[in-house]
Amino acid sequence: MTDPVRVPARFHHVGFVVSSIEQAVNGFAQALGLRWQAEVFADPLQRVRVTFLGEPDTPQIELVEPGGTDSPVWAFLAKGGGLHHVCYETDDLDAELRHQRSTRGIIVRSPVPAVAFGGRRIAWVYTRQRLLVEYLERRLAP
Amino acid sequence: MTDPVRVPARFHHVGFVVSSIEQAVNGFAQALGLRWQAEVFADPLQRVRVTFLGEPDTPQIELVEPGGTDSPVWAFLAKGGGLHHVCYETDDLDAELRHQRSTRGIIVRSPVPAVAFGGRRIAWVYTRQRLLVEYLERRLAP
Repeated sequence: MTDPVRVPARFHHVGFVVSSIEQAVNGFAQALGLRWQAEVFADPLQRVRVTFLGEPDTPQIELVEPGGTDSPVWAFLAKGGGLHHVCYETDDLDAELRHQRSTRGIIVRSPVPAVAFGGRRIAWVYTRQRLLVEYLERRLAP
Repeated sequence: MTDPVRVPARFHHVGFVVSSIEQAVNGFAQALGLRWQAEVFADPLQRVRVTFLGEPDTPQIELVEPGGTDSPVWAFLAKGGGLHHVCYETDDLDAELRHQRSTRGIIVRSPVPAVAFGGRRIAWVYTRQRLLVEYLERRLAP
């Protein structure tokens, strides 16, 4: 069953895996005409480094660099990297995950606070159609 | 040289390659909580079938199905399909392509009218950072 009162999630960013943020970011920003937000976040829980291009209130491009060979994006990079996931911002992460389970999506990673979003919680879902989706909770969990 | 008066392009959609729109679309729409726009466009120039999920004024998901083995997405599907490109809507497609050439992007496909966008022109660019970008002109060419 889907949740009848579910508020649509807002498209937040698309994630693109690179071997080196430092090597890729200026060319990326220039090619797409997007402003680099200049901060690089190292997330020990996700074992990645990430940075964002574009204005915060518009769909952004996230560059994702593996934090090491144990990073969840390491294998993806080894196959060439590139477009990796989409991220939606949601008012209610737990309700979103209940919905995903109801549509037989796989919860790849349960909610954890994310360094790149000031501690707001994220979770990862692999839909039955094989789209990797990151869900970002709009507000900081109390 | 970049164009100093360049207006930022607007994120329009992200394209996801599937083997069958008919088999994938309802599950996709349900999982993401996005409305399927219900129309499937067959584009003989692009040799693909495409359809859109989400509201027209928000970032959409485009499902792309190869129109045959000669389709530009056939090889991508053979490797598993999935996230394929991002699309930006631009006021001036020709200026955008001049900019892309100046940043050493490869113009994979020069502007052609697209069935899925009422004949508005699209072009394809592969950036130096290996992101495939579709540019969609905002207005119908005169």
